[in-house]
Amino acid sequence: MALRTGDQYREGQAKIKHNVYIDGRKVENLEDNLNTKTVVDAIAKVFDLGQEDRYDEIMNVVSPFTGEKISRNVYPSRSTRDLEMRAEMGLLTSQKLGTCNYRCSGLDAMHAIASVTYEMDRDMGTGYHQRFVDWLKYVQESDLAVSGALMDVKGARDMRPSQGDPDRYVRVVEKRPDGIVLRGAKTHQSGAIGVDETLVMPGVTPREGEEAYAVACVVNNSQEGITYISQYNALSAEREFMKDNSKLGNPLYGQRETCTIVFDNVFVPWGRVFLCGELEYAHKCLLRFAKQHRMTCGGSCKVGFMDLIIGATQTLAEYLGLDGSPIIRQQMIEMAKVREVSYGCTIAAAYRGEEQPAGSGYYLPNDVFGNAAKLNTGDGFWEVMKWAGDIAGGFTVTMPSERELDNPVTGPLLQKYLKTHGSVEDRMRMTKFLQNWVAGLHGVGTWHGAGPRQNQMIALWRDIDLEKKKQMARELAGIED
Amino acid sequence: MALRTGDQYREGQAKIKHNVYIDGRKVENLEDNLNTKTVVDAIAKVFDLGQEDRYDEIMNVVSPFTGEKISRNVYPSRSTRDLEMRAEMGLLTSQKLGTCNYRCSGLDAMHAIASVTYEMDRDMGTGYHQRFVDWLKYVQESDLAVSGALMDVKGARDMRPSQGDPDRYVRVVEKRPDGIVLRGAKTHQSGAIGVDETLVMPGVTPREGEEAYAVACVVNNSQEGITYISQYNALSAEREFMKDNSKLGNPLYGQRETCTIVFDNVFVPWGRVFLCGELEYAHKCLLRFAKQHRMTCGGSCKVGFMDLIIGATQTLAEYLGLDGSPIIRQQMIEMAKVREVSYGCTIAAAYRGEEQPAGSGYYLPNDVFGNAAKLNTGDGFWEVMKWAGDIAGGFTVTMPSERELDNPVTGPLLQKYLKTHGSVEDRMRMTKFLQNWVAGLHGVGTWHGAGPRQNQMIALWRDIDLEKKKQMARELAGIED
Amino acid sequence: MALRTGDQYREGQAKIKHNVYIDGRKVENLEDNLNTKTVVDAIAKVFDLGQEDRYDEIMNVVSPFTGEKISRNVYPSRSTRDLEMRAEMGLLTSQKLGTCNYRCSGLDAMHAIASVTYEMDRDMGTGYHQRFVDWLKYVQESDLAVSGALMDVKGARDMRPSQGDPDRYVRVVEKRPDGIVLRGAKTHQSGAIGVDETLVMPGVTPREGEEAYAVACVVNNSQEGITYISQYNALSAEREFMKDNSKLGNPLYGQRETCTIVFDNVFVPWGRVFLCGELEYAHKCLLRFAKQHRMTCGGSCKVGFMDLIIGATQTLAEYLGLDGSPIIRQQMIEMAKVREVSYGCTIAAAYRGEEQPAGSGYYLPNDVFGNAAKLNTGDGFWEVMKWAGDIAGGFTVTMPSERELDNPVTGPLLQKYLKTHGSVEDRMRMTKFLQNWVAGLHGVGTWHGAGPRQNQMIALWRDIDLEKKKQMARELAGIED
Amino acid sequence: MALRTGDQYREGQAKIKHNVYIDGRKVENLEDNLNTKTVVDAIAKVFDLGQEDRYDEIMNVVSPFTGEKISRNVYPSRSTRDLEMRAEMGLLTSQKLGTCNYRCSGLDAMHAIASVTYEMDRDMGTGYHQRFVDWLKYVQESDLAVSGALMDVKGARDMRPSQGDPDRYVRVVEKRPDGIVLRGAKTHQSGAIGVDETLVMPGVTPREGEEAYAVACVVNNSQEGITYISQYNALSAEREFMKDNSKLGNPLYGQRETCTIVFDNVFVPWGRVFLCGELEYAHKCLLRFAKQHRMTCGGSCKVGFMDLIIGATQTLAEYLGLDGSPIIRQQMIEMAKVREVSYGCTIAAAYRGEEQPAGSGYYLPNDVFGNAAKLNTGDGFWEVMKWAGDIAGGFTVTMPSERELDNPVTGPLLQKYLKTHGSVEDRMRMTKFLQNWVAGLHGVGTWHGAGPRQNQMIALWRDIDLEKKKQMARELAGIED
Repeated sequence: MALRTGDQYREGQAKIKHNVYIDGRKVENLEDNLNTKTVVDAIAKVFDLGQEDRYDEIMNVVSPFTGEKISRNVYPSRSTRDLEMRAEMGLLTSQKLGTCNYRCSGLDAMHAIASVTYEMDRDMGTGYHQRFVDWLKYVQESDLAVSGALMDVKGARDMRPSQGDPDRYVRVVEKRPDGIVLRGAKTHQSGAIGVDETLVMPGVTPREGEEAYAVACVVNNSQEGITYISQYNALSAEREFMKDNSKLGNPLYGQRETCTIVFDNVFVPWGRVFLCGELEYAHKCLLRFAKQHRMTCGGSCKVGFMDLIIGATQTLAEYLGLDGSPIIRQQMIEMAKVREVSYGCTIAAAYRGEEQPAGSGYYLPNDVFGNAAKLNTGDGFWEVMKWAGDIAGGFTVTMPSERELDNPVTGPLLQKYLKTHGSVEDRMRMTKFLQNWVAGLHGVGTWHGAGPRQNQMIALWRDIDLEKKKQMARELAGIED
Repeated sequence: MALRTGDQYREGQAKIKHNVYIDGRKVENLEDNLNTKTVVDAIAKVFDLGQEDRYDEIMNVVSPFTGEKISRNVYPSRSTRDLEMRAEMGLLTSQKLGTCNYRCSGLDAMHAIASVTYEMDRDMGTGYHQRFVDWLKYVQESDLAVSGALMDVKGARDMRPSQGDPDRYVRVVEKRPDGIVLRGAKTHQSGAIGVDETLVMPGVTPREGEEAYAVACVVNNSQEGITYISQYNALSAEREFMKDNSKLGNPLYGQRETCTIVFDNVFVPWGRVFLCGELEYAHKCLLRFAKQHRMTCGGSCKVGFMDLIIGATQTLAEYLGLDGSPIIRQQMIEMAKVREVSYGCTIAAAYRGEEQPAGSGYYLPNDVFGNAAKLNTGDGFWEVMKWAGDIAGGFTVTMPSERELDNPVTGPLLQKYLKTHGSVEDRMRMTKFLQNWVAGLHGVGTWHGAGPRQNQMIALWRDIDLEKKKQMARELAGIED
Repeated sequence: MALRTGDQYREGQAKIKHNVYIDGRKVENLEDNLNTKTVVDAIAKVFDLGQEDRYDEIMNVVSPFTGEKISRNVYPSRSTRDLEMRAEMGLLTSQKLGTCNYRCSGLDAMHAIASVTYEMDRDMGTGYHQRFVDWLKYVQESDLAVSGALMDVKGARDMRPSQGDPDRYVRVVEKRPDGIVLRGAKTHQSGAIGVDETLVMPGVTPREGEEAYAVACVVNNSQEGITYISQYNALSAEREFMKDNSKLGNPLYGQRETCTIVFDNVFVPWGRVFLCGELEYAHKCLLRFAKQHRMTCGGSCKVGFMDLIIGATQTLAEYLGLDGSPIIRQQMIEMAKVREVSYGCTIAAAYRGEEQPAGSGYYLPNDVFGNAAKLNTGDGFWEVMKWAGDIAGGFTVTMPSERELDNPVTGPLLQKYLKTHGSVEDRMRMTKFLQNWVAGLHGVGTWHGAGPRQNQMIALWRDIDLEKKKQMARELAGIED
Repeated sequence: MALRTGDQYREGQAKIKHNVYIDGRKVENLEDNLNTKTVVDAIAKVFDLGQEDRYDEIMNVVSPFTGEKISRNVYPSRSTRDLEMRAEMGLLTSQKLGTCNYRCSGLDAMHAIASVTYEMDRDMGTGYHQRFVDWLKYVQESDLAVSGALMDVKGARDMRPSQGDPDRYVRVVEKRPDGIVLRGAKTHQSGAIGVDETLVMPGVTPREGEEAYAVACVVNNSQEGITYISQYNALSAEREFMKDNSKLGNPLYGQRETCTIVFDNVFVPWGRVFLCGELEYAHKCLLRFAKQHRMTCGGSCKVGFMDLIIGATQTLAEYLGLDGSPIIRQQMIEMAKVREVSYGCTIAAAYRGEEQPAGSGYYLPNDVFGNAAKLNTGDGFWEVMKWAGDIAGGFTVTMPSERELDNPVTGPLLQKYLKTHGSVEDRMRMTKFLQNWVAGLHGVGTWHGAGPRQNQMIALWRDIDLEKKKQMARELAGIED
């Protein structure tokens, strides 16, 4: 059981009555709705990748807790090599799915919680870490899919959590002898509807008096009081109503499906609570999650997406007879440059990772390089979209439906008039695939995934040793202190 | 009749049996399909704008041919002031529609054809210009909606028109005593389904032996042999299936709706043929259309779109309590900068326009500034999307359907958790509106409208006086000739 | 006398004992020092351009005050056509000098003072405008060279004028019956050492209690109490010590030469005082000067510089056999694009200029387009430097002295080894010319000329009608007010 | 002797009669000329850094050939950790010198030659590698300063080496029993005047018939037939004539000093020839040098320079009271971003380095990440200059000479008027230091160091697995092969 197959995962999900809403309609069985189904399909595919020998080193690892081979998706890294493989896993799943793998935030949350709970126990003699390890062993043994929930709905940004509606950030509304009661809502939750459990973390750095917001714990996705409200947009409508998925841009795994999770007085037993009121450590949770997640979500995941865009664009350039143009090639290389720079920073982040805290056995990546990867990705992804769209041409947005090909009048016309090198079907399909990337949700999504640019800018500024640089300049300028 | 109302235009369209296909299905009455309907709605709105006193100077003008007040949409400019007002008309309709006004390419084609036929008659004693003026008077008197068709389907770009299928570019397949027969297909045709007539122009500079491709003429949109195949994408599906348009990003006028027009042996009487085989003038047609269209499509039209994006983003910044942040404001100004630079170049293109050819009475804009406007718009629009998406936040792509608000379970939850400054409905609606701009078709569409970047780059290079610049540098460097 | 020649101007300067310091040494006769001499040479050249028939429309104009043909350099514009010609004059002198024309700030200051004094007299019944016109007539009749002084030394930017040393901004330290006494210092003053008079303006928007800083007046450049301290840098040293100017990058007119002007209790009679204590109008002075100067300094002047860079780069590309490369050509066009966009905005700024205040007869450019021009120039100039440096190659910074060519050992070696298409002398000279532009002071200088980027950003934000844009977006999004 | 001090190196140089020309004048003793002296000073400083315990791991290493501790500057890397330390050495010397360390190209050439000669011997049974190791041991034991010479003067780029003057690329003009005779010239040679020996490599990929250009060998810098012609520019003039170096921007180590080396029938004994006619391996030499040098010169070296720029800019921001502005801070972070991204790619290049060829014991960095580092540096350095110049202000280019402070008239005036937070001397000195970086040679120099952008673009394109990316896209798009 330590390594489930995709089908075993599907069976698990089929047993759950989901409390999921999409477009104002309830979905109890995720595979009933063509949008929520993509989450199940994507997660199942990731389970299946773990079954392939050629990906074994990337996807699997031996647990120090169970002594068994487990999925890397439930394994907090224990070396810089682990961090590198964790990054490679994000790259591989992006290349194979063309969408989110949906366990990324959960795994990165485990990294943060492992590290912080170890530190809390060390500093304060609490028992949080043991609780966490107990839960983690269970997760590893059952090979559960786990999501991580950080981003609160927040409301107006010019108000603290304690101003206005206090539930804008998830908080503990009651502490009972047997556990705590949660209220609030997390948003932008990728694929949380299709996992087994969700690791909840603080999404704000709480100040004194805001202890209720310093909470980390695990909930089960079918737990009472939890409601999932799925995103819905034009691509959702297209998938749902077009029926024939084979004619969509990413026919297999679709868009990144996110949701808002509402916690309406959700009970969590103490055994699943890993932080409760410790302000300083709430802050550390946030920082360490960000550190880990920028390397993976901002780095390797998007590097995989860029591979797909580059591959699709080059294919279209060949169909269109444009691949011999020096200007087109230059633009292809501009795209490749963004890709490789982000990848380089990602690998450096892993390689320069460090045990944190010392002696814990847990490793986290280098923060500066993770932020560098994310910043390059965020700024560069729009650039990549620009050049891909340039090369693929206006047809990327003006193409007719592939269903015209089945129409006896328009089908032959398109077969005649859209012909380039290669078949018309292939051209239309690859164009539709690229439309998904350059004329859809990915620009803004990539920008905000793992936090918006300004977060990384601030983190970068915090981490560089400015005084040392000033000192270097003074020395060479001949200014005495 | 010289100034039709929107309703009069609608009545005209209602009488036509359209030969339009969308998503593999036939549409005979454009208002029957929610996507093709947006074209009619947008064009009707433009007719109605011409009825408003406050827009009279921009929208209307007195025709030198009929002596009556007519729509500027069917009036080739006769002064630089006309060019300026023509640019302002493009700006106004973009601001009011948030999509294409659908008569822009037709009007710009009239500019090119008026100028070139005048020159042909002057140079060769042909009667093309008189034919054109006769047709133009009819158009002005009937206040017709006219589209312009330039872009051929082209097929593989590494082949000349005469290589491969000869119909990849629209061509004359037969010359008869009473007229010509056309075959081929034009693509990326904005709103051509909803106009009365279409002005066809050469989409390639034909070389010797390719005279059949040197053709300009007018066709009627319900003429035998013409088939329109509409674009179809996720936003089309959403509009069609969601039914309640009020919950879409641009509820009134939708996306830019384009189509591919197939000409299958379409007959055009000589009285409506304005160019037929004259290679050199075919080239001039292309150049002058481009000159005119880059100012309007690349310049003022997109300036209006940027106004909408800036307005929507600032509104959301205020809802979210972000408008006081200096960093956010800086990004707002970056957007405004792109807008104003493009607008400046547009106005300069109009102001530095010239009569062409001298003595003709027809004015065309300055080519360099038109290209400068388009280049700044193309490069800058992605930048604008980036900052708008940054400020509006990840919710721009992850938002649930507005229909959740009607659900008794999720409605109250969203009312509670999505609350910021202003109402939840307004926030969701404005976010959806912005989603349309920054997470949809507009990046690639703006880039390729009026031709891709490389076209303008080449045009710019052709137009600058390089030798003069070299001479200046040599003089100052002290290099003797 | 209304149009002096360069020589007449030189004679005028030769009579003055200048109180100028450079590199710690005093210069009484500007032509004695090879750096200060370039200012005289440049200004003389501008006088001579006014003598050439082909430049007459650009350089000269008939004064409404004297009824005579005068230099446009001392003429506040009276129509949008005047503004356009004023911009063209800035372009022409940049192309001909490759450096500052040194009367630009003075002329733009005249525009501001003419407009503001007219308004003060109208509003308050003061006699400032008549005083200004009297002085202006004298300047026009004598064809004086006039500089404008705005930028105070300021000191630390986190202190108001009234905090710290009160002389950090130029101020009135005494009002006497016959005039005022000035103290303080202005900096970044281009060519002020070589003019006849300097128009001093407020460099800060003074608040209540800071009335002493609200001062505009004229001083004579040899007046008691004024000290000029010239800039000095590597290019200064090279010019001074190399002796043979023909082997420098801009052999004729050199770098933009600036200075700091110190006013140490300088007396100004009332007849030459145009503002004294009127806070609101001091602010208007600043705004109107900025409006005028951004069009000219940020726009047309730098457009001329870009012409020189483009011309030099293309020449070198031809010497090096690189001009056939599509990638190189693309980079050339990128440079041309920056040039044309700035030029377009400049022309739009002139064309959309307006009489200010209404009825005054004085015209000022459109503020938004002037700021757009400057912003595009500032951002783009570094881009231009980048591509020019790319094409010209590493030799742009590693080239030996042209004096090696006279050495019997190394001369023949360089003649052999530096040979490309064209002569080695020409290659070295053109490379040195370009070095001046891309490996010297121009990047930072262009950025800060007419004020740093942030000033234009703030001005742009102030000038756009944000509420109107928000309203447009709301309408289309279907949000009711 | 295996680790020389700076003074020991100086003594070595003092014994040489240099055949160096600068500004048309001969320099036999490098310390006699203030420009050539900076090379000696910089190299001596690097020797001294090797004496400091705290830098021991970075600067020194145990040689496998001599068994002794030697300078890393003469040590081809034998592990990825070595590559990382080699990169760190480049960073450290840049931070300490603010200019070139002058042994970088020599060390990177050793990497290439070690790897290629090993491969030649393995493939062809030649004895090149043993010769190289013999020479290397001598260099390590004597702790020599070695430069690497790659870039030929080339002449017009549209001609092959065999077209036009055959000496435009360094070539073997004669093979004798005891050795070879070289003719030609290498250019852009940083600090070659001040080293002991120079490792010459092919600067072009020779084709069949161009075997004479496939040559790698070592020459002694005082060898007969070699002439060095130094670069000369404004900064050279300033340093030479100002005398007081303490008032220059980089008072200690100056500009990167380069030269053109002319080989006029220079004899090289076979024992110092490492490649002679083997076309394929000449190509490998080039590629491997580029691979190594882009990581160090394009990566870590410039990262150190950016540290200095960031440190200087922040210092000035504090002097000017600007450091509290959010906009200024944002610009500081933009600079830091460029720095960290380049550093990340550099570290990834080292970490992902590989033994090449397998079994050789020699390690070279990852090519893709090295190119990524260089591309980010090249594009970003202009960005860094832009923001640094923005923050430091116009004074960066308009500042007077620090010598004014000694003048009894102007000194007190500047003390009064240039006062901000901190002393006027410190402000002027730091501004001068920054002037050196943002208003001098560094933009173009950084761009072209380790080859211009286009070289890296082509290398990147060659190295990415395009077919694999196309395959990934096809799979997800549902296109069957």
